[in-house]
Amino acid sequence: METGEIKEYVEKLCREGKESTYNIASLDTNTKNNFLNILSKKLIESEKNIISANASDIEAARQRGISSSLIDRMLLDHKRIVQMAEGCKKVSYLPDPIGSVIFGVKRPNGLEIYCKRVPLGCIGVIYEARPNVTIEITTLAIKSGNAVILKGGSEVISTNKVLVELIKESLKEAEIDERAVQFIETTDRSAVDVLLKQRGFIDVIIPRGSEGLIKHVVENSYIPVIETGIGNCHLYIDESANVEMALKIAINAKTQRPSVCNSIEKVLIHKNIASNILVPLVMEFKKRDVQIRGCQQTLKYVKDAILATEEDWYKEYHDLIVAIKIVKDLREAISHINKYGSKHSEAIVSENYSSIRRFLRDVDASAVYANASTRFTDGGEFGFGAEVGISTQKLHVRGPMGLEALTTMKYVIFGNGQIRT
Amino acid sequence: METGEIKEYVEKLCREGKESTYNIASLDTNTKNNFLNILSKKLIESEKNIISANASDIEAARQRGISSSLIDRMLLDHKRIVQMAEGCKKVSYLPDPIGSVIFGVKRPNGLEIYCKRVPLGCIGVIYEARPNVTIEITTLAIKSGNAVILKGGSEVISTNKVLVELIKESLKEAEIDERAVQFIETTDRSAVDVLLKQRGFIDVIIPRGSEGLIKHVVENSYIPVIETGIGNCHLYIDESANVEMALKIAINAKTQRPSVCNSIEKVLIHKNIASNILVPLVMEFKKRDVQIRGCQQTLKYVKDAILATEEDWYKEYHDLIVAIKIVKDLREAISHINKYGSKHSEAIVSENYSSIRRFLRDVDASAVYANASTRFTDGGEFGFGAEVGISTQKLHVRGPMGLEALTTMKYVIFGNGQIRT
Repeated sequence: METGEIKEYVEKLCREGKESTYNIASLDTNTKNNFLNILSKKLIESEKNIISANASDIEAARQRGISSSLIDRMLLDHKRIVQMAEGCKKVSYLPDPIGSVIFGVKRPNGLEIYCKRVPLGCIGVIYEARPNVTIEITTLAIKSGNAVILKGGSEVISTNKVLVELIKESLKEAEIDERAVQFIETTDRSAVDVLLKQRGFIDVIIPRGSEGLIKHVVENSYIPVIETGIGNCHLYIDESANVEMALKIAINAKTQRPSVCNSIEKVLIHKNIASNILVPLVMEFKKRDVQIRGCQQTLKYVKDAILATEEDWYKEYHDLIVAIKIVKDLREAISHINKYGSKHSEAIVSENYSSIRRFLRDVDASAVYANASTRFTDGGEFGFGAEVGISTQKLHVRGPMGLEALTTMKYVIFGNGQIRT
Repeated sequence: METGEIKEYVEKLCREGKESTYNIASLDTNTKNNFLNILSKKLIESEKNIISANASDIEAARQRGISSSLIDRMLLDHKRIVQMAEGCKKVSYLPDPIGSVIFGVKRPNGLEIYCKRVPLGCIGVIYEARPNVTIEITTLAIKSGNAVILKGGSEVISTNKVLVELIKESLKEAEIDERAVQFIETTDRSAVDVLLKQRGFIDVIIPRGSEGLIKHVVENSYIPVIETGIGNCHLYIDESANVEMALKIAINAKTQRPSVCNSIEKVLIHKNIASNILVPLVMEFKKRDVQIRGCQQTLKYVKDAILATEEDWYKEYHDLIVAIKIVKDLREAISHINKYGSKHSEAIVSENYSSIRRFLRDVDASAVYANASTRFTDGGEFGFGAEVGISTQKLHVRGPMGLEALTTMKYVIFGNGQIRT
């Protein structure tokens, strides 16, 4: 498509999405759940098609020399397809947030005011490698009464096409306005910029992906954005830490699934405990093929580590790489995290009451942990039943986003002729 | 100042504001209330100074031929100064939102998760004519544990300077970090654009003012924005309306204070009631010097009305002007409002149950009224005790914003060595 055609194409999808919002907002819960169950079944039935489309995407990615952690995110296998199908069912079990009264009041002048939960309207989602986002976001959007415009990653466009076909078929069977889910079927990057200007059609933009994508969206969008998922997370090991616990948490938070945003990228170690913990920690990391970078001090203990640059401290590796820094005290650890961190998830391992209290209070992040792995920052692990993403901004919602993150409120006011004097 | 100097100057204020956030976030409630009471007293004591600075601003505005509704917004007189002082006290009576636990849960793995209310951090506020915003926003920001960067209107810079001096003195007396309130003391418009790029220093931007200002902020900000206060509000008079009630509400909503955002700009009238209501309505409007514009149909009843243009239907007059449209049914009224409205406050006058239900459901706005004046969309009138502004966006907060609109949340998690498997 030419640039002008892309613009026209994206605008058309957004307009259609917006036009459907009144139909979607007023759907009853049973109809929405019926759609979710139909989609769940179709995913299981279509495993072969999905895997075949996904295999062609992955083959093409391999040929372009894409990293193994990115391939991991692109992959759909039997297990992940079952997970997607189960995800649809889980969303059907969640309470419908729409129409609930957040609060109500009768004012002295007799006005009755109800603050009700309503859908956001039409949500634009820009995402990268993970095709399961297509299913996740769609099911959460429909359950919360929203239309959604999907712009998935070019690298999985074949997989996404198959998934969107299943979604459209399921909407049709459930007798829901099919315009509620729009898929921008192009690998042309200019489509994103057109999408970001659709004020009036799109009510909120959610980018899910790399730091570069999110920065681009934030700087170019005319539509309110919910920033998600950049995780330059830290583990701070205090001088009072239980060494065994610190080792266990560090290994888990770094290596259990390095490609996700709630994994740690940095370990900060109090200078007084460094000689106890650094050598066993590095040994455990090396056993799991983790590449070690470190500050000057760290290099004294770990001769073959790479010296970390200023850029390293800002970086989310998304990979089996860790940077270690020895700090002189808690204060330095907190300052370092607040300067370089992405306000996602930050943890302290300590046995000292005051240090823990101060860390949890002064570290500015969506989730702060005492003596636990950062890997728990997740809608499922928090008990939300589903997750739209993890917000790293402060507006609207922070941390794991459940269904309510896709809603807003509306004041409905009943009077009998009240005027203001 | 040169352009480079403006940039340096604004960045310095923002950096200082941000640096103060940790001090402000951890202030106890008594200290914050003490500040509010000191400021309240100082406002009363300084009435002469305030009025004299304000008089010079107003004199300059008059010489530039500024409209009377703008002058009204600029004006501080004895009554409004007393209101500001009382406003400070009212804020001191409000419960401190910071530190309250929004919800908490113990997960099956033993993790204890608390979702706590915390300040946003550093808030940038860009506003225009009304100098009382300086006091309102500052008191609400401090009470909710935030630092604030103020960029007030050039037309009231002398008034604002006096008010900010009183704020700084009050912070000092209350032993609060004075850097928490920063005032951008320049009439150079480029200061706004520098402010809008201060990601990292500023957590949220709140523009309060004209449509042009808000559009500029939305399109140029790298920082999340809370849009406020554009009010192209409508009153729809249904065929079943009580004529007397409709007249009373229309007159109140248009003329009680035309310079504010919750006043109506448009009246939509069902065709079957037009002949009953149009003539008395126009007569009442004319008595109060309201200029009448209207659709072709309206002009048949009101010979001397001006024909409304497409632009009129989008416009917020902020003045004694109204545009009247005759619609063929409820559906046309709702479509018109959803197309031209600013999603602020919309009202129906009707005695028909189904029409009211449909209007309240399908009109997309922060506040929808049945049989009451739109003038009630206001933090005070809703019982919030204070108001940061009226959000016309869907993200974070919608409608009148109380203290909680200036907070976000933080998940604080206590474990004893939990790792994810």
